[in-house]
Amino acid sequence: MPSTIYDVTTWTIPGSPGTTAYTDIGAVVNSIIADIKANQPNQASKPGAVVYIPPGDYSLKTRIVIDVSYLQIKGSGHGFTSSSIRYNSGDTSGWWEIWPGGSRIKVENTDGKSEAILIDRGGSPRLSSIELVDFCLDGLSFTPNQNSYRNGKIGVRSTSDTDSLRITGLGLVYLERGVVLTGVDALQLNGNFIAECGSCVELVGSGQATMVNDNHFGAGPAGFSLFAEGHFGLLVSGNNVFPRGKSSVHLKNCNDSTVSANRLHSFSSGMVTLEGDCRNNLVGANHFLRNRESFGPFQGVPLTTDDLFGLVHINGSGNTVTGNHFTYDVPSASITPSGAVPTLVLVKSGSGNYLAMNHHVANVGVRSAVLDGSTTNTKVLDSGTAAEFQALGAATYGFRATP
Amino acid sequence: MPSTIYDVTTWTIPGSPGTTAYTDIGAVVNSIIADIKANQPNQASKPGAVVYIPPGDYSLKTRIVIDVSYLQIKGSGHGFTSSSIRYNSGDTSGWWEIWPGGSRIKVENTDGKSEAILIDRGGSPRLSSIELVDFCLDGLSFTPNQNSYRNGKIGVRSTSDTDSLRITGLGLVYLERGVVLTGVDALQLNGNFIAECGSCVELVGSGQATMVNDNHFGAGPAGFSLFAEGHFGLLVSGNNVFPRGKSSVHLKNCNDSTVSANRLHSFSSGMVTLEGDCRNNLVGANHFLRNRESFGPFQGVPLTTDDLFGLVHINGSGNTVTGNHFTYDVPSASITPSGAVPTLVLVKSGSGNYLAMNHHVANVGVRSAVLDGSTTNTKVLDSGTAAEFQALGAATYGFRATP
Amino acid sequence: MPSTIYDVTTWTIPGSPGTTAYTDIGAVVNSIIADIKANQPNQASKPGAVVYIPPGDYSLKTRIVIDVSYLQIKGSGHGFTSSSIRYNSGDTSGWWEIWPGGSRIKVENTDGKSEAILIDRGGSPRLSSIELVDFCLDGLSFTPNQNSYRNGKIGVRSTSDTDSLRITGLGLVYLERGVVLTGVDALQLNGNFIAECGSCVELVGSGQATMVNDNHFGAGPAGFSLFAEGHFGLLVSGNNVFPRGKSSVHLKNCNDSTVSANRLHSFSSGMVTLEGDCRNNLVGANHFLRNRESFGPFQGVPLTTDDLFGLVHINGSGNTVTGNHFTYDVPSASITPSGAVPTLVLVKSGSGNYLAMNHHVANVGVRSAVLDGSTTNTKVLDSGTAAEFQALGAATYGFRATP
Repeated sequence: MPSTIYDVTTWTIPGSPGTTAYTDIGAVVNSIIADIKANQPNQASKPGAVVYIPPGDYSLKTRIVIDVSYLQIKGSGHGFTSSSIRYNSGDTSGWWEIWPGGSRIKVENTDGKSEAILIDRGGSPRLSSIELVDFCLDGLSFTPNQNSYRNGKIGVRSTSDTDSLRITGLGLVYLERGVVLTGVDALQLNGNFIAECGSCVELVGSGQATMVNDNHFGAGPAGFSLFAEGHFGLLVSGNNVFPRGKSSVHLKNCNDSTVSANRLHSFSSGMVTLEGDCRNNLVGANHFLRNRESFGPFQGVPLTTDDLFGLVHINGSGNTVTGNHFTYDVPSASITPSGAVPTLVLVKSGSGNYLAMNHHVANVGVRSAVLDGSTTNTKVLDSGTAAEFQALGAATYGFRATP
Repeated sequence: MPSTIYDVTTWTIPGSPGTTAYTDIGAVVNSIIADIKANQPNQASKPGAVVYIPPGDYSLKTRIVIDVSYLQIKGSGHGFTSSSIRYNSGDTSGWWEIWPGGSRIKVENTDGKSEAILIDRGGSPRLSSIELVDFCLDGLSFTPNQNSYRNGKIGVRSTSDTDSLRITGLGLVYLERGVVLTGVDALQLNGNFIAECGSCVELVGSGQATMVNDNHFGAGPAGFSLFAEGHFGLLVSGNNVFPRGKSSVHLKNCNDSTVSANRLHSFSSGMVTLEGDCRNNLVGANHFLRNRESFGPFQGVPLTTDDLFGLVHINGSGNTVTGNHFTYDVPSASITPSGAVPTLVLVKSGSGNYLAMNHHVANVGVRSAVLDGSTTNTKVLDSGTAAEFQALGAATYGFRATP
Repeated sequence: MPSTIYDVTTWTIPGSPGTTAYTDIGAVVNSIIADIKANQPNQASKPGAVVYIPPGDYSLKTRIVIDVSYLQIKGSGHGFTSSSIRYNSGDTSGWWEIWPGGSRIKVENTDGKSEAILIDRGGSPRLSSIELVDFCLDGLSFTPNQNSYRNGKIGVRSTSDTDSLRITGLGLVYLERGVVLTGVDALQLNGNFIAECGSCVELVGSGQATMVNDNHFGAGPAGFSLFAEGHFGLLVSGNNVFPRGKSSVHLKNCNDSTVSANRLHSFSSGMVTLEGDCRNNLVGANHFLRNRESFGPFQGVPLTTDDLFGLVHINGSGNTVTGNHFTYDVPSASITPSGAVPTLVLVKSGSGNYLAMNHHVANVGVRSAVLDGSTTNTKVLDSGTAAEFQALGAATYGFRATP
């Protein structure tokens, strides 16, 4: 049986011996995938293969297109380092090194494509159990403004449904969009380091039974650290989400999903945003810290939400927000609108939402919970004083102040 | 020193050169284990070895028996795909592939044994730090009824005590029992994908200080997604458990264990069942969704519990159920007994159980907590209205309705 | 391009052909690191390398010094076994094996150094994305008293700042200090097995955005299972921490950190200790079990805290302790001071701490919460009866008894 183990550094593209993994790892991996298909023509036996990327700096000129199941692309190190710090430093000529490393793919597409890796296949079944493990996708720069988080580059994108996709141990840096996946079922996206990307992870279209655990995320000020749309049964647990995304976890039209045991830190409101019709989600046992942008180059970037938006912003019904800690620490002069009393949890719409036993610490007076006048039957328990609670207009609710 | 790195595809069994990993990977691995023992005869130096399984389809005719510590069996991909969908589809002749893949062991025992992998050794010490990583165990079929979840096959079984066993990244599919372990101490069973098995994971006999985190589980209607017996200090966290197991987490005679930050979805009651004498366990910050079987072929399978059994069913004392979300969404006509008011948490026996701050959303009227007449000193706080609470007979309790 | 893949068993040290990984793996790895530096002289391309350690027993005589980013040292098995059980057994001549295994480094420094692995580099940038994966560091013995947890050995230490360091799958045993890291940013320390060490993990100096998830920890009676100092945004989730550390999680001068969804078991008070100025931390949805030392050889070791210290001991302000379960099960005769009513949560100092919905089970009468006379504005809700609550001196508070 032909080998199912490939090393990008030793593969020669038939008919293109001059192309190497160092000059175009995308062309090399696509050639390997073609070889896998040629070697596994039988519908009844297509176990896939592993493509190994040793530590090294590899240019990607051609987008990788994965259209076989059970392909594992594996490196030996996510190689993250902060490019943001470097670009905002002065003279770095004396630095030990200046770029990310590990098994590092430099995303330099010259093929007119946006993606480093595209996952796509029509027909049946869905692509299953593709695994991306322990390598680095480096978007290199956000030229001309290194703090713009804009370069049009996408690390990993899927455009057809997948089952049991596994993304683990990756390091993504300086991509406008890190991971953009359509129609995932039972994705495991665990243990990655995705930071200094415009958005880190976007789960679009729809999805179910997905797990996003134990990651480090940190998006740009206009982007999402984690965005999920149309999802059902998503679990987001054990993540350390640092700034500066406009939200830490953003759910749009999601239901019966769970955000628990995460540490969330942001420089803006909307840390957990439930947009559209979000029903029966749990936001429990998380730590929220909202303070002010601390890095000079970004302090002038305007926020997209004000301090009345809520650290947690809820649209929809039947959601549960329990056992969370909120720290709010923003200088009065930086609060918008000027003079406003900041909102910690805003129930913007819906019925039967339940907020209980959330504790907050704040450097200014806050509203721990605000109910829009359109909302009905919200419960707010042990989450602040009566003065910190505000029910607008015709809102109906049960309330119990913290004694 | 002899190599401690083995590749199943290059190993030749002494005296049986015709047997390959493709014809019987079990015989090959057993031969490798024999070689490890021959090479490591000295009690003072038995570091074990790694057995690598490249991506491929491997028949297992002979059960693997692991009786050495520190053996790591490692593949390059768990290779899960849904066989259930395929078997319930019509013509699949046009499908790209029809089987699971990755480093795939086809469990085809012709040796009269049930297990693909058996872990067993007498004497002292217990087997330690065996590691099973990143491969697939495929039971192939539930002939003649592909929806029966019955074929007598077991993926991994241990019958003697183990310490620090590690099972991670496996894909198990179409086995009657996925993993059955006796007497584990400090097991790590993390990041696996175990679905379409009769039962997924059974921890039998006794055990302590075990961790079951970050897995995808989904058992058959007669089985368990996770079962643990006689355990102490078990931690079950960050798992995404989808249907259709008769329970999601089933603890029997367990104490001081923890079920937290999981997403649980089931088509039946008993999602978390505490059976027998279960004391001082924590069920906290989990999401429960109970709705109706959605897949036609299984809609006729009778449930083993009715809607009075409770999504959480508690036997024993001193257990804590806090900060959970419950969604109940079953058509009235499907509720059993007919006309019953479904129970979310049933305290069936014991004293000093504590239910607080559990929020529920339901499409019909429910009892959020029901106390059996035999129970004493239960606390039910902020978990529903007075009308949703029911204390039977001589039950004693403290109750506070959600305001 | 030179290979970036190294195997310690095949590397020859230039000028020292007689040294092997078996005689001094430290010298071998240092030689490999020197080779990496020689091969990667260009500031603009320093991807690092992977150093593979096959299963085997390797003596470390010379400390490994890592001063390059993106180095991955990887084994094939953490190889933990209990040396404590063995040293406290009688005749082990009939045992199958007597030592830990896997990719096992025997820490035998003859170079006058304490550390097996030191991470240190001056200048800029900080060392990034060093990865230590799936091997064993075995300190061998605590001579002359195998139960002393004293031998001066340190497994992994860093003495300069690091970014995105990753430590996963390690097994550490019989070291006085397992991991001691200074100035970490965004560390991932996940999935390790660190036990029978004086202290397991110490994060000293300062740090931020770190993740310590899914580990097994168990320190010695004088040490820490997890200690963190000056940290901000630390996440500790999904860990199974067993005895016998004097604390399970010890935070000193930490703020906005999170301890959630862990299972904690200890033989002493101070299981979670917040020392010094600890602000705005969350301790939520954890399971605490405090009982008596069960292993004869350690039953005589005096505890460093008494039963009035609290299973949770809080210094500082604005901390949140919610949704936890406490089991206290210590024979009356073993309680200190003699006749004392044990304390579960002690708020020793500070303002605005919040304790809610913590349930306890105890074999004796306990104080579920005690407020020092110096404390102000503590909230204690649904965490026990009025008789179980004690506010000393001038303490101010809000209190609500469990109904």
